[in-house]
Amino acid sequence: MYDKVAQPLTNAFERRHIGPDAAEQQQMVSALGYSSLDALINDAVPHQIRAVDPLVLPSAREEAEVLSALRDLAAANVTRVQMIGLGYFDTITPAVVRRNMLESPAWYTAYTPYQQEISQGRLEALLIFQTVIEELTALPIASASLLDEATAVVEAVLLMHRAAPKAGGRDRVLIDADVLPQTLNVVRGRAAAIGIEVVVTDLATHVGAELAKGGVFGVVLQCPGASGAVRDYAAVIGHAREHNALATVAADPLSLTIITPPGEMGADIAVGSAQRFGVPLFFGGPHAGYMAVRSGLERMLPGRLVGVSVDASGRPAYRLALETREQHIRRETTSNISTAQALLANVAAMYAVYHGPDGLRAIATRVHDHARHLAENLHAAGVAVVEEQFFDTIVVRTPGEARALVGEADHVGINLRLIDSNHIGIACDETTSDDVIARLLRIFKANSVAARRVRIPSTMIRTSPFLQQPVFHAHRSETAMLRFLRKLSDKDLALDRTMIPLGSCTMKLNSAVEMEPISWPGFASIHPHAPSTQTAGYRKLVTDLEQWLCEITGYDRVSLQPNAGSQGELAGLLAIKAYHESRGDDRRTVCLIPQSAHGTNATSAVLAGMQVQVVATASDGGIDIEDLRAKLVRHVGTVAAIMLTYPSTHGVFEEQVTRVCELVHHAGGQVYIDGANMNALVGLARPGKFGGDVSNLNLHKTFCIPHGGGGPGVGPVAVRAHLASYLPGDPLCPDSSAQPAIAGAAYGSAGILPITWAYLALMGPDGLTSATRTAVLSANYISKSLSDHYPVLYTGPAGLVAHECIVDLRELTRQTGVTAEDVAKRLIDYGFHAPTLSLPVNGTLMIEPTESENLSELERFIDAMIAIRREIDHVATGTWPIERSPLRNAPHTAEQIASDEWELPYTRRQAAYPLPRVDFHKYWPPVQRINGGHGDRNLMCSCPLARSLSDHL
Amino acid sequence: MYDKVAQPLTNAFERRHIGPDAAEQQQMVSALGYSSLDALINDAVPHQIRAVDPLVLPSAREEAEVLSALRDLAAANVTRVQMIGLGYFDTITPAVVRRNMLESPAWYTAYTPYQQEISQGRLEALLIFQTVIEELTALPIASASLLDEATAVVEAVLLMHRAAPKAGGRDRVLIDADVLPQTLNVVRGRAAAIGIEVVVTDLATHVGAELAKGGVFGVVLQCPGASGAVRDYAAVIGHAREHNALATVAADPLSLTIITPPGEMGADIAVGSAQRFGVPLFFGGPHAGYMAVRSGLERMLPGRLVGVSVDASGRPAYRLALETREQHIRRETTSNISTAQALLANVAAMYAVYHGPDGLRAIATRVHDHARHLAENLHAAGVAVVEEQFFDTIVVRTPGEARALVGEADHVGINLRLIDSNHIGIACDETTSDDVIARLLRIFKANSVAARRVRIPSTMIRTSPFLQQPVFHAHRSETAMLRFLRKLSDKDLALDRTMIPLGSCTMKLNSAVEMEPISWPGFASIHPHAPSTQTAGYRKLVTDLEQWLCEITGYDRVSLQPNAGSQGELAGLLAIKAYHESRGDDRRTVCLIPQSAHGTNATSAVLAGMQVQVVATASDGGIDIEDLRAKLVRHVGTVAAIMLTYPSTHGVFEEQVTRVCELVHHAGGQVYIDGANMNALVGLARPGKFGGDVSNLNLHKTFCIPHGGGGPGVGPVAVRAHLASYLPGDPLCPDSSAQPAIAGAAYGSAGILPITWAYLALMGPDGLTSATRTAVLSANYISKSLSDHYPVLYTGPAGLVAHECIVDLRELTRQTGVTAEDVAKRLIDYGFHAPTLSLPVNGTLMIEPTESENLSELERFIDAMIAIRREIDHVATGTWPIERSPLRNAPHTAEQIASDEWELPYTRRQAAYPLPRVDFHKYWPPVQRINGGHGDRNLMCSCPLARSLSDHL
Repeated sequence: MYDKVAQPLTNAFERRHIGPDAAEQQQMVSALGYSSLDALINDAVPHQIRAVDPLVLPSAREEAEVLSALRDLAAANVTRVQMIGLGYFDTITPAVVRRNMLESPAWYTAYTPYQQEISQGRLEALLIFQTVIEELTALPIASASLLDEATAVVEAVLLMHRAAPKAGGRDRVLIDADVLPQTLNVVRGRAAAIGIEVVVTDLATHVGAELAKGGVFGVVLQCPGASGAVRDYAAVIGHAREHNALATVAADPLSLTIITPPGEMGADIAVGSAQRFGVPLFFGGPHAGYMAVRSGLERMLPGRLVGVSVDASGRPAYRLALETREQHIRRETTSNISTAQALLANVAAMYAVYHGPDGLRAIATRVHDHARHLAENLHAAGVAVVEEQFFDTIVVRTPGEARALVGEADHVGINLRLIDSNHIGIACDETTSDDVIARLLRIFKANSVAARRVRIPSTMIRTSPFLQQPVFHAHRSETAMLRFLRKLSDKDLALDRTMIPLGSCTMKLNSAVEMEPISWPGFASIHPHAPSTQTAGYRKLVTDLEQWLCEITGYDRVSLQPNAGSQGELAGLLAIKAYHESRGDDRRTVCLIPQSAHGTNATSAVLAGMQVQVVATASDGGIDIEDLRAKLVRHVGTVAAIMLTYPSTHGVFEEQVTRVCELVHHAGGQVYIDGANMNALVGLARPGKFGGDVSNLNLHKTFCIPHGGGGPGVGPVAVRAHLASYLPGDPLCPDSSAQPAIAGAAYGSAGILPITWAYLALMGPDGLTSATRTAVLSANYISKSLSDHYPVLYTGPAGLVAHECIVDLRELTRQTGVTAEDVAKRLIDYGFHAPTLSLPVNGTLMIEPTESENLSELERFIDAMIAIRREIDHVATGTWPIERSPLRNAPHTAEQIASDEWELPYTRRQAAYPLPRVDFHKYWPPVQRINGGHGDRNLMCSCPLARSLSDHL
Repeated sequence: MYDKVAQPLTNAFERRHIGPDAAEQQQMVSALGYSSLDALINDAVPHQIRAVDPLVLPSAREEAEVLSALRDLAAANVTRVQMIGLGYFDTITPAVVRRNMLESPAWYTAYTPYQQEISQGRLEALLIFQTVIEELTALPIASASLLDEATAVVEAVLLMHRAAPKAGGRDRVLIDADVLPQTLNVVRGRAAAIGIEVVVTDLATHVGAELAKGGVFGVVLQCPGASGAVRDYAAVIGHAREHNALATVAADPLSLTIITPPGEMGADIAVGSAQRFGVPLFFGGPHAGYMAVRSGLERMLPGRLVGVSVDASGRPAYRLALETREQHIRRETTSNISTAQALLANVAAMYAVYHGPDGLRAIATRVHDHARHLAENLHAAGVAVVEEQFFDTIVVRTPGEARALVGEADHVGINLRLIDSNHIGIACDETTSDDVIARLLRIFKANSVAARRVRIPSTMIRTSPFLQQPVFHAHRSETAMLRFLRKLSDKDLALDRTMIPLGSCTMKLNSAVEMEPISWPGFASIHPHAPSTQTAGYRKLVTDLEQWLCEITGYDRVSLQPNAGSQGELAGLLAIKAYHESRGDDRRTVCLIPQSAHGTNATSAVLAGMQVQVVATASDGGIDIEDLRAKLVRHVGTVAAIMLTYPSTHGVFEEQVTRVCELVHHAGGQVYIDGANMNALVGLARPGKFGGDVSNLNLHKTFCIPHGGGGPGVGPVAVRAHLASYLPGDPLCPDSSAQPAIAGAAYGSAGILPITWAYLALMGPDGLTSATRTAVLSANYISKSLSDHYPVLYTGPAGLVAHECIVDLRELTRQTGVTAEDVAKRLIDYGFHAPTLSLPVNGTLMIEPTESENLSELERFIDAMIAIRREIDHVATGTWPIERSPLRNAPHTAEQIASDEWELPYTRRQAAYPLPRVDFHKYWPPVQRINGGHGDRNLMCSCPLARSLSDHL
């Protein structure tokens, strides 16, 4: 019958984003003993925090409308030949890498590789990244990876501070004046927060004098410098060493293919950005920062470190090495880097794989050839070129004419760097063509004749080989590269194959329509220092997002600059600190942190120059109010803030949160609410209204930016009005009255903001609220379904959880020996990525289904968990000794199943196909359980020179 | 050391496209006993055919330059709200389908699913397509798929001609005047070629009279018609039936969700286009045409038919049903459809899966609502609406003002159809918004008030349910859809995991940079009837391509209209026929075809109205010259043409080809050279110069358009000057002096032409020649490497093959029972897609490595073939009885390996991991060997209503 059924088309995207449809939701609601989802939500979410008003956001738009609106925004950004430089260079992302890595859900929907058996592909890629950095910097150990160059320098300063011999109390760091300006800005702010004195000077001239003053723990150099200059800093570094100070060199990795690397100049640490290895400009980010260190410093290295170990069968396997360094486990660490830039590091790694050492050197050579061609002809035309020796960037002196000349370049489609009215910077890159150089020479009325001189100091020409490992020589045809990318990603489990029920990580749909715009040139090819006339689209997008996030959180101002949750935390704490100081209240430096908090919280507090005091957990998992009162009394007059997560990492909505906020406010402290679990709140409650003064958000959790195998991320910081003037400042416009910047680019990971913009535009206020309600419903459905089989650790008053639940294995472990880790690994055999393991409580699994999983997938997970419970019974009854059980031997590889011998007490079929729904599409892990200790005892963090390991894996 | 190594950057793409690098090529050349590749090529390619001059084409450009040039071309096309209709409607491709199917190499690089065990995913998708068509048309059997709607109507006419009771000699077909004009054009030409009389008339009025004249075998109706009219044609169909004539209804599948389907009107056949199910307009193609038939006609159905059968273990499995219908096996078939539009059919299928019946009906309802809203308000404003009853398209009468009004619409961004100076057509579609309707009403100075009447005749409102199968209800969230697409593609082997050494199919790299532009709106969203002012980009691209292909082939003119090789053949033969007729030489209707020819050749000749005479093969695999002379004598004065393939499908460069051409020319015939093996010639020889009068090309073989799992394709026809005026005409500008069109759109599969444009621009003349040389080198390397283990059937005088080689299993089969099929299936266990099986010679494998496979992959294949040869020895010596050998039991599934029992004489490990290089990345087939006969005896060509089959597979 013809009928008017237009309704399903309205807000179509909500129905695509949210997994369970109306009938499934009703079925789940009924199973939980409720008549309606409203009733369930009313019981689950405390009325004290419930938002009174619905969200006021633009109505939901359909996919085509949103794509069209984003096309308009992209078109409002102006693409130009970008020759501004200053740490950001245009680059060519090989199309095969763009399509099959940056745009492939198998890569971008993957989680951080903590579950190493199902992460061998991205671990291998990250190991390649480390190898690239190690080989180019000539330092033996690199991590994978850091957030950007500016914060990488901060991390280097912190590392030098920790590592330098402490005789004589060293709190001064010397920074060369030719370090990038945005780096200086970020370092100054971060150093000040923890009492490090920064001295910026021309080190080539003044290093001796400054060292002689004493107290110097390290020096930071940049080569090529902000001026483009390439100088031999071996003498400066030697001076520093004589004074027991360490040396960091910030270096452009492309330049290192032809100039002497930091390690060969004697540096202890090299840092920088891998952006120009195929990662788009993205208006400033996301890009992978890097750090490499000399031997002896590896245990202090921030960021993740991938190493080689062996699995249960003795085969080589990749894993995260030295995990005890990892802030997600220990509170007392010194870096808060968690989300890094894994996806971008992997793009950079594959760029190196695809080009190989000869290709990279050819690119660098071409870049230098263009730069010296330009310099020589400008000089011949009477234009003063400031530095004689450079790699890719020159500065020209054009007294009084700089602005006019930059304008002329703009007219022929080229962005130059206007330094001041007399100076212009010009940076060449991989995309610079002969035609572009010719256009520039015409502007300067210069001729174009062949350049004669190489402009790199003779002592600075690299002679050592690099990237001799087979992987940099085996995938040089596109066909080979395509298969290598597929092979790596096939080793891993990502959202394109299974739910990833990771508590507190909110692994929800990253929809294609949200992802598509980020690779459009109108978003991808914009330089962060492009003039504002060229970035109207980005600015509108940023303004929209700031407004929308304020409305969602109930705060008054948002900064999108922090490029990870950790950086948002730090920015928020620094705002609190600055606020107290502005009132003369500078004794307030104690930060209260509940026991259940994320590991990064405490580290961020330390990095903000605060002292951490832990508040105990009550038996119901909530904050122990009496302990809080006691702490407030003990630290009267010095409490800066409390940092709490809401709902807490225990997975419940604590009713007393408003009381906690009142108590802290009453004591003169500020309330910091970590937004990690915002997916339980959007549309239902606003932290800025129920007691928070500041929150960070994780756009890569609640707001659909994919995790990328460990980043990118965006960690906006949202504050109430009284903190607004303490948000991060513009890294390029240092203003003594403004806060320092927290990232190298004004809008941090700007290039991925279209994802969140699209999500909010697609969902609209009702869709967002519905997503939250469904997330809570699904978590409770899992909690209820599993509760007959496993104890659920914490629930709220109505027996309900929030958007996640913690399954407690500890009693079963005591009885049977089966650990939470055994369950996590056995889930791999059932085709699942494990839930969050032993966080925040050891011996537990924290499960967060999100709203995006439909009932069929929830049931598949529940069935697996129940089947595993039955397997635990077999261990309990002695049918299977624990060491010979499928639990302890999980995961099982296909090669193991196909082996001729099989002497285990369970069958091959039970091992590999424990349930009928583990069907053809069964995921086969590439390795058995990995032995972590072996890898730490035999640390190996580079690709092997021999082929065998790589062939095996 | 700093050195100037810019050279590797020049023509960088050639180094990406061609697999073996210089060192590998030298190694292969040496292994073949040559000192240089030049020397090898000189021995392999006969000097008689060698091109004297190098290719004159634009120099190679780098990837970024080519993308930029294509962006400029796309920008030179104007995107508009497309309301022209006439069989092409704008549609929204769900982003999840675009990114994970249309843009996913796992889908687009797959081959036609002849090797069914490694094609279960795309077979399942095609079965879904069939089910969609069957359910929407209410006819029980649909094929998957046809080339476009116009050729689908041709196929329906041919089918009715074959199927109608032949009493009384029936050669007349009645076609309703409301059939789409491009369809009429194509049908007229195709019917004339084989002597069918076409009567075009208003059948609702005249069917009785026309039937009474006798000789009518069928009627063709269109509903909704070109005018938009929806009429109940049951009575017309009833009349036809009374006269033993069959009835075909061309129908828009979206309309069938709300109007009565052809099957329920009594039609025997339904045809149409599935374009508006998510397939972009693409300036006319590629789109999937469809056909469904009533029970009893299934064995006459053109196009591939997917059916359900069982595998060796008795499990359900998908396969191509009734394969003996397939033209690739039998010469005496009646349709030449081979490459169809599998990828586009699959997009349409997934569109239906994603929307489900309720979503499709909601879309159709909204479309109709917009159309009736428009009609009612225009009527109220005094604008005459021609048809009272319609689905999505209305025609308005605006005496003398039509052109001006269409111009006004253009000014507000909308394309309407200018029918004549008094009439305008307006077609609504899924993308039509309220705003667009409002803009239109303003142009017509009409108000906008709610419409009251549904404009579908009451007898034509669909009441029957459709798409009740579980698959149309299970994947409605994007997450579920993403995983479904991944799950399906994971079942299949495509170029992203292994070489596909299919002789005569040229499975080379389809590079990402070539593929990216096709989904840009500037190419994807252009209506084929858009005014030429809006299509400058496409026209430039077409002109470039025509010129470049002329240069490559040595012909004088090229038409890009044929959208498959088969259509190019037909167009070429029709040109030859028209040429002879133009000279009054109309006795020339004999087409000589060598025994080794592709199956489609003979069918195309029949469809061109020619009589086929087979020319024998000589013992060296070449054309038997004596037999050719005899045939020329026997058919003196009647030889129209010889159709030969060069190099022949026997994989050798025949030296005598120039002699063959001379003989045929001397006899007054034309020489047709099938371009299927053009990959052996580009840059080395030009068929238009060494004797050909006409060739078809396969842009989806030699020129990098991916196979898409069985299409799309582009089959340009290239001719010497004397045939130029007989190339296909414009389907929309019928001109009695011009040839009829061969496809519904002027440039056929225009939307994928950017792929070939990019390939030619990226490679340049030297790169293209180098590719050919490498293809010949690699084929000879494989031939030589295997020749100690298997006989190579044919080689040229120097013992060399061309770009492929045939390995002869017949003697081994005789000795051991191991068949070529056993080897093909066993290769799956080794991780390979099999070579071409038993074509052109039964019991052989035809291997074509192409230039894109590097030496490592060639060696992997050679190692596998040699290991299989050793396995055959085990059968020969009796170690393994053939029936219990890994060869006969291949391929082996993971479930089989994991089964508790294993009673075969070889081990699980030998079964699954026969070589060390079958490593983690081992491909596991989802089914064991498929029993074809079972499926044909129990024909099932739809998705099951129960979940079980789908769950199993």
